Amino acid sequence: MRIALDAMGGDFAPGPIVLGAIQAVQKDSDMHVVLVGDRPQIEPLLASAQNVRDRLEIVHASQVVGMDDSAAMAFRKKPDNSISRCWQLLQQKKVEAIVSAGHTGAMVAGGFMMRLFLKGVKRPGIAALMPTAQGLSVLLDVGANVHPKPEHLYQYGVMGSIYARHILQRDKPKIGLLNIGSEEDKGNELAKETQDLFRSSPLKDQFIGNIEGRDIHKGVCEVIVTEGFVGNVVLKVCEGVFEFVMKVVGKEVLGALKTEIPLAQQALHGIFKRYDHQELGGAPLLGVDGNCIICHGSSKERAIENALHVAAKHSRSKLNDLIVKELSAGSPPTASE
Amino acid sequence: MRIALDAMGGDFAPGPIVLGAIQAVQKDSDMHVVLVGDRPQIEPLLASAQNVRDRLEIVHASQVVGMDDSAAMAFRKKPDNSISRCWQLLQQKKVEAIVSAGHTGAMVAGGFMMRLFLKGVKRPGIAALMPTAQGLSVLLDVGANVHPKPEHLYQYGVMGSIYARHILQRDKPKIGLLNIGSEEDKGNELAKETQDLFRSSPLKDQFIGNIEGRDIHKGVCEVIVTEGFVGNVVLKVCEGVFEFVMKVVGKEVLGALKTEIPLAQQALHGIFKRYDHQELGGAPLLGVDGNCIICHGSSKERAIENALHVAAKHSRSKLNDLIVKELSAGSPPTASE
Repeated sequence: MRIALDAMGGDFAPGPIVLGAIQAVQKDSDMHVVLVGDRPQIEPLLASAQNVRDRLEIVHASQVVGMDDSAAMAFRKKPDNSISRCWQLLQQKKVEAIVSAGHTGAMVAGGFMMRLFLKGVKRPGIAALMPTAQGLSVLLDVGANVHPKPEHLYQYGVMGSIYARHILQRDKPKIGLLNIGSEEDKGNELAKETQDLFRSSPLKDQFIGNIEGRDIHKGVCEVIVTEGFVGNVVLKVCEGVFEFVMKVVGKEVLGALKTEIPLAQQALHGIFKRYDHQELGGAPLLGVDGNCIICHGSSKERAIENALHVAAKHSRSKLNDLIVKELSAGSPPTASE
Repeated sequence: MRIALDAMGGDFAPGPIVLGAIQAVQKDSDMHVVLVGDRPQIEPLLASAQNVRDRLEIVHASQVVGMDDSAAMAFRKKPDNSISRCWQLLQQKKVEAIVSAGHTGAMVAGGFMMRLFLKGVKRPGIAALMPTAQGLSVLLDVGANVHPKPEHLYQYGVMGSIYARHILQRDKPKIGLLNIGSEEDKGNELAKETQDLFRSSPLKDQFIGNIEGRDIHKGVCEVIVTEGFVGNVVLKVCEGVFEFVMKVVGKEVLGALKTEIPLAQQALHGIFKRYDHQELGGAPLLGVDGNCIICHGSSKERAIENALHVAAKHSRSKLNDLIVKELSAGSPPTASE
């Protein structure tokens, strides 16, 4: 299992990124990580990892896509950037998966520019895990595709459904379309046309129609389909509200207690840890020929380690074969691309 | 101060709606509420309110827009519905404000169909209050306008800024555009064009550019501008996450405590109450000639009472005069409608 890791991607790169790789290969004896980035910076970070040094390889890349760069400009002006190098390794089949906590737009654009899509896939989409009252659900797209067509959203339903079945172990997952009302005629044109596609597709029995923002965390469905702009905002709003509420609760509940503060602290810490994005290990870009995991920019070693395990798990699963098979088996009748 | 209240609107109408009106007029001796709806149902509910009966009037409407109705169809097939009757009272200047917890789409459509807009306003927008780490901010639009143009979003910035100054008492409020990245070139075309409008407008010094979903609750700005579809989803996602986190916290923190459960319960109850939408009293549809407050469908008497007080406060403020004045003073150069 060979995975390329963008050693230069993320707010804290390269130190915690490389450390995450070391920890991952120490736990998974079948994992080999190709660290892509500036060799002079990466090399010394491996000094403490002699026991797994043979499964940690460096591929030099002299440039980094900055968080303020535009993706298109970055690829033109920085051809030797670590994200492009990761994609090239995937395209050349030198690795089975790639992982980055760097510039999300550039990660997505890298795959789009190479058209490294699975057969039948119109546009890959990023799938994020959402904790709900019924367990984990998957929300997609959360930012790969800000100008989606109805058929793209339909394909996100297909891919999300496969993901929910095979990664989340949810039998016959329900699919909901995120909209601004539950009635059929609600929403914008995209939402209305997407509904029609689902209702005339092989997924019609799994499709529960429109869901609203407040339904996500109730867990009314295991797959939530939406356009990239909305999904990205939703994902970040959830993060913001969670942090806000936990801060208020921490202050006011702990402030109200006298002798049992440590007990409450421990319970709050457990909740924090469970829903922390660092535990979830990044979001897959589904629809790519290979496996691509996109991590939060603030990822540290634990997040990177988890993302590498997720990348390995996805590569070992038959997810991509199933996506190709189910997309070819039955697309709904449509002429749109 | 005369306010029309849709007595038939909302999941629990008419009982708690009428009760909310009774409580409001009992507290505000200057308030007169016109209860719009089915007289035979409303009349008996007023039996206990003899001391304020002279300030509670009934205007009969024989029909109700159901939550499953499409707004356009409802207006055609149910001409005597309570929402249309409220708007007519506002148009005829028989009331200064209208309040409904009924079908949001129909409430918005009622004003749009009459073109009861303030001079210079292209499209009214619903403004929702968002609790943040820095106090309350205002998010708009949260669902009145799902096909906005850049100039509509710009006007939401103008109206939101006036609202933040005069209702939230925030001096020189900062305005942010909700987007999927903080860099200038991020997002869809609407976001990019809207940014250009703000940067060349009289609001340029207040405009802080793009903000992301996770910034809302940090309180990085007092006015958050977005399109109706996104705003509506965000509002409901916030509600969903808040309920989810509070439930998890309630179960696990209280479960961890031994003798101090009542203290923690009291603190949690205080948080619940503070951020409960019933306390916030509904969201104004800004840009309407008059005052229109849209309440949550699940509103009970406390929410309705608060919404009536909010409607009165808005009517007494000079909000609408300021909106007309500031929109006429300096619109950014644009030809779009």
